[in-house]
Amino acid sequence: MKKLIIISLLLTCAYSAGQAQRKSVNLPDLPGYVTLKCDFHLHTVFSDGNVWPTVRVGEAWRDGLDAISITDHIEYSPKEDYIPVDHNAAWKIAENTARDYNLILVHGTEITRKMPPGHMNALFIQDASLLDLDSVMDVYAAAIKQGAFLQWNHPGWRSQEPDGIPKIYEIHKTLLKNGWIHGIEFFNDSEYYPLVMTFCRQYNLAVMANSDNHGVISEDYKEPEYTNRPMTLVFAKSRTHDALKEAMFAGRTLAYFRDMIAGKEEYAKPFFYQCISVGKSFYQNDKSVYFEVTNKSDIPFYLVNGAPDAPQSLTLAANGVTRVVVSKKISSPLIYEVKNVLVGENEVLKIELKY
Amino acid sequence: MKKLIIISLLLTCAYSAGQAQRKSVNLPDLPGYVTLKCDFHLHTVFSDGNVWPTVRVGEAWRDGLDAISITDHIEYSPKEDYIPVDHNAAWKIAENTARDYNLILVHGTEITRKMPPGHMNALFIQDASLLDLDSVMDVYAAAIKQGAFLQWNHPGWRSQEPDGIPKIYEIHKTLLKNGWIHGIEFFNDSEYYPLVMTFCRQYNLAVMANSDNHGVISEDYKEPEYTNRPMTLVFAKSRTHDALKEAMFAGRTLAYFRDMIAGKEEYAKPFFYQCISVGKSFYQNDKSVYFEVTNKSDIPFYLVNGAPDAPQSLTLAANGVTRVVVSKKISSPLIYEVKNVLVGENEVLKIELKY
Amino acid sequence: MKKLIIISLLLTCAYSAGQAQRKSVNLPDLPGYVTLKCDFHLHTVFSDGNVWPTVRVGEAWRDGLDAISITDHIEYSPKEDYIPVDHNAAWKIAENTARDYNLILVHGTEITRKMPPGHMNALFIQDASLLDLDSVMDVYAAAIKQGAFLQWNHPGWRSQEPDGIPKIYEIHKTLLKNGWIHGIEFFNDSEYYPLVMTFCRQYNLAVMANSDNHGVISEDYKEPEYTNRPMTLVFAKSRTHDALKEAMFAGRTLAYFRDMIAGKEEYAKPFFYQCISVGKSFYQNDKSVYFEVTNKSDIPFYLVNGAPDAPQSLTLAANGVTRVVVSKKISSPLIYEVKNVLVGENEVLKIELKY
Amino acid sequence: MKKLIIISLLLTCAYSAGQAQRKSVNLPDLPGYVTLKCDFHLHTVFSDGNVWPTVRVGEAWRDGLDAISITDHIEYSPKEDYIPVDHNAAWKIAENTARDYNLILVHGTEITRKMPPGHMNALFIQDASLLDLDSVMDVYAAAIKQGAFLQWNHPGWRSQEPDGIPKIYEIHKTLLKNGWIHGIEFFNDSEYYPLVMTFCRQYNLAVMANSDNHGVISEDYKEPEYTNRPMTLVFAKSRTHDALKEAMFAGRTLAYFRDMIAGKEEYAKPFFYQCISVGKSFYQNDKSVYFEVTNKSDIPFYLVNGAPDAPQSLTLAANGVTRVVVSKKISSPLIYEVKNVLVGENEVLKIELKY
Repeated sequence: MKKLIIISLLLTCAYSAGQAQRKSVNLPDLPGYVTLKCDFHLHTVFSDGNVWPTVRVGEAWRDGLDAISITDHIEYSPKEDYIPVDHNAAWKIAENTARDYNLILVHGTEITRKMPPGHMNALFIQDASLLDLDSVMDVYAAAIKQGAFLQWNHPGWRSQEPDGIPKIYEIHKTLLKNGWIHGIEFFNDSEYYPLVMTFCRQYNLAVMANSDNHGVISEDYKEPEYTNRPMTLVFAKSRTHDALKEAMFAGRTLAYFRDMIAGKEEYAKPFFYQCISVGKSFYQNDKSVYFEVTNKSDIPFYLVNGAPDAPQSLTLAANGVTRVVVSKKISSPLIYEVKNVLVGENEVLKIELKY
Repeated sequence: MKKLIIISLLLTCAYSAGQAQRKSVNLPDLPGYVTLKCDFHLHTVFSDGNVWPTVRVGEAWRDGLDAISITDHIEYSPKEDYIPVDHNAAWKIAENTARDYNLILVHGTEITRKMPPGHMNALFIQDASLLDLDSVMDVYAAAIKQGAFLQWNHPGWRSQEPDGIPKIYEIHKTLLKNGWIHGIEFFNDSEYYPLVMTFCRQYNLAVMANSDNHGVISEDYKEPEYTNRPMTLVFAKSRTHDALKEAMFAGRTLAYFRDMIAGKEEYAKPFFYQCISVGKSFYQNDKSVYFEVTNKSDIPFYLVNGAPDAPQSLTLAANGVTRVVVSKKISSPLIYEVKNVLVGENEVLKIELKY
Repeated sequence: MKKLIIISLLLTCAYSAGQAQRKSVNLPDLPGYVTLKCDFHLHTVFSDGNVWPTVRVGEAWRDGLDAISITDHIEYSPKEDYIPVDHNAAWKIAENTARDYNLILVHGTEITRKMPPGHMNALFIQDASLLDLDSVMDVYAAAIKQGAFLQWNHPGWRSQEPDGIPKIYEIHKTLLKNGWIHGIEFFNDSEYYPLVMTFCRQYNLAVMANSDNHGVISEDYKEPEYTNRPMTLVFAKSRTHDALKEAMFAGRTLAYFRDMIAGKEEYAKPFFYQCISVGKSFYQNDKSVYFEVTNKSDIPFYLVNGAPDAPQSLTLAANGVTRVVVSKKISSPLIYEVKNVLVGENEVLKIELKY
Repeated sequence: MKKLIIISLLLTCAYSAGQAQRKSVNLPDLPGYVTLKCDFHLHTVFSDGNVWPTVRVGEAWRDGLDAISITDHIEYSPKEDYIPVDHNAAWKIAENTARDYNLILVHGTEITRKMPPGHMNALFIQDASLLDLDSVMDVYAAAIKQGAFLQWNHPGWRSQEPDGIPKIYEIHKTLLKNGWIHGIEFFNDSEYYPLVMTFCRQYNLAVMANSDNHGVISEDYKEPEYTNRPMTLVFAKSRTHDALKEAMFAGRTLAYFRDMIAGKEEYAKPFFYQCISVGKSFYQNDKSVYFEVTNKSDIPFYLVNGAPDAPQSLTLAANGVTRVVVSKKISSPLIYEVKNVLVGENEVLKIELKY
């Protein structure tokens, strides 16, 4: 008695007239903090990027970000035959659009030098044109005078470090001694640098993740390969420009890209526990206990190295529910390593599932 | 200064070894009730379906459902040359699997007659074999004796009603007078019957939505055309078999398919308001007020017929955030019709956005 | 005996290091002609667009196009506070990139006036700066002097024609009399104008489809809603700049967007027959003949209004094979209307399936 | 001059009423042969599968296959409490549906024994009930008497070979000496066994790939992880049951799954060259030659280990066009290893791009 006839549907079709929409990024807040999703490294036609500054705001808004910084190069202006140099142009053009779209726009620029010291973003500045100086130490001093957060960009970029390994040179030691480096990129576009975890721990710096995009986000981060650009998660006391700044100087960040999280354990651990909830057992018999683990976040978690008799590994799918069957013979707690949450150069997060 | 070299990624790849996962269906609870997602109309090889009963459990679990009923035909057994008739076989086979997967399995069957009275599902029964009787009224009586919830299936099915319009025949009047009909399908697979809204209001019956699937759910409801099968949303006091039964007899349901909701206003209205939240204004100037509306559910809402000076229509994308700019000249409240939430045969839900 | 263990796979992962790739657009050639996929209406930061000219080349290449024209406005330069006006800049910047990517770049510009005459693209010009004149007729004359193909853009654009209906004004009559209009846009972005079919027939003009994109193609034409931007299909004697020009002046075009084709029957009909092939009957019995229709193109075809006894409608899915069962009682040929191939303002293509 | 108003579209919506459609699998024929896509290992409710036999036909048809075999276990009938054992039932039930859908249905069964000899499919038989015998050698003899093609299934299945490595036991030596093994599975579901390549070469056997599906194909092979089930490509003189049989006994096969091909070089090499075409140079300057490589197949090819000065690696995307820029300094031919085309246990295909 199969259905033979299908009547036409009144079902409405999605339409998009009138107003814009952005997606929700499902990442939890931490107790006492709101999680801001940020990209602090973006280029436009005002240096070597290929889009107008307002495009960066639109992209970020659609991607569900809370804050961005446009960081055109001070020292590199390949389009100047067509576009006169103006280090603050991108900021001026994007400012009102950001305000209208409820996006925090951080005034920034990229100080662009050979290695050492390499490239460094100055964030939370007031006037990028004051940073157009010959001596790089003068530039840093001028940035610090404006209250800048200095972020060391892609420290292992192979164009500057052929072996891909970041190195602390003399000038970096000086900067660190001065307190003039506040964060380092762990992820930059599709590159990442494990050693950054050690540097950030040792010098107590913020772990950063940014796209460094020069082209178009929707072309460069496409499904199914990419569901999101690299982003820095900042745990701020509120969703404001100044609270963001306070949180970054305090180093309350995690780096996020694809299905990886990297950062200090003090943030990674509560972040993981906010993502998941372990249900009560819904059934048990002589042999086994049955329960479910819900992952409310967009990040899948790969749990490995379970105890003997426990499930060896568990994948907690993003926005999914995982059914777990555990033998009653297990006496030890359900402890796992989370393969895709890095808390050190060679160290992953350890967690316990309490059911 | 484009990135020239991309180092190899350690990024972990999704793997699925070990344990199964199901998706989360994002639909809110109502105050005091948990929202159970249900499909009360499914077939297997024990009548004219093409899958083994445990397949129905696996499909439902992966789809994030809470309850199903397998309702093979009593009077129609086209596979009996190969499979001896056993009206309770599907129930017996699926019972343990449902328990192990935390799915509520409702014992059911389909009483399969010509129109009138047409097809009717008996849900929450104990023994389907006792319903294999000649007289249809005897069958209903036997079902009621078992405490059955009787659901009138696809009342406008064109194989039985060539004009596609459901009709209340004498036998239905008798059943209604007896209190022997408790719900009617508004959605059955891809068909729906607007008049069911009037019947359900008039006789105070539950509005139902079911797949009536005979084949394979993952073939018949595929993205991008379909993101979900039809499901009945039941507002139960808890997630148990008995609470589900109580809620259905009390008529606390909504019918859900694709991007449509249909049901009584008393459930549709709070359901809508649980799905969305209207943010405070994040910016205003002389002319306009800016705010965001977040839709935390999987259902987009199409708001139409706005007041003059207000945005004429607003689409609140599923799991998305909608930015709204409203003129300060508007004095009247922001009232809209929700085009895809039906509360009557020709009536859609009216709501207000309070910002 | 279900598989219990899954060994790890050596399966290689897609990687994209090294070189770029573009998709193949599956649209057939016509006998004697190669089908060039073109977008003759694009903007950049040199007028009111938001991307650098090379972005347009990259987008087109990835989309599988053969030719584009960047057509910034002569009379509208909203970014001139930051970018000095240079009407040929986009052409100069994009030229070498187009050459390196084997894309035909047509030098063009948009003559941007109130209605009448509205907006008009001059294509195949040599120097756009010579078209920066006060009198619009002088501009057209200057364009024609350069050998331009003049395309009337979005003739029913509601900003200029509030009722959405294109109209032939006196100035258009003069232009047509002079032979100074060579094509009209049927599709412009997501708008289209049925009446254009009548104009093109009456005055023997090329039917055009273009994106008129100001932002980013990959944001504005996204799956699943859009699988392609609007494009003009040009039937050229070879894949060269000059053959393209010859074909356009000869009017050998079809307009293509989403799942619609619009244009003259003399091109639409052979195009349809090149897309599909009807297989021989693979089975027949007393009642019916069984055969398959293969659609090798990216365009689905919706066949409607079949003869009595024939299947009433047939959907020939894109890149798919459709199984057809025809009653042996049918004596008449299998004639259908192709609902999504327009050959006139109110006329669709009629075709026959010969099996 | 951005578009402000979007008029409603007449654009037709895809609908699927009336008739079924299948996808085209883009894999080329070999000169003199048609490439048949086959799955020779499938289960139904008549052993330990979970679907009715006609489901297997429908799945295969939609997936674009040419031939399947339903191979229920002779010795394993876990559903016999509900379904009486009938070794030919699946064949009888599926036969007419296969005919109506133009699918070649190969009569088969699975001879299901402990290792050694393990599981073996008998294909192209006439009566499976004659194979229900105690002695496994008697079963093979009975199958051979019916003209069977004997396929050794999943020879390294860890339930039978805990180390995952296939082994030639005495009984296999006997069978091979008799000529009673004709093919071996390289891919079985998501497992594969590299050593099979050596066996197939040494004993001149057909390399096979099958799904061994017990559940539902559309659930078990889902995008984006899977775009196709494992399939055996058979190079037959025509698309008929008997030509298929001839080709298989002649060993003209390749195994295909995900983005991998495995098989004898004599088939893998021409298959690769049929998939791609290398265009003439479209541009060259003092330094470099520019050309395109088109891959018309659904399989991406990963070319690695290029000569010095040549591009080190090239990815030829499925159904895509790859742009290649080669230095004029290269004197040697453009020779690559195709990383995902295996022609031996530890050997990949070597090819040359002639431009």
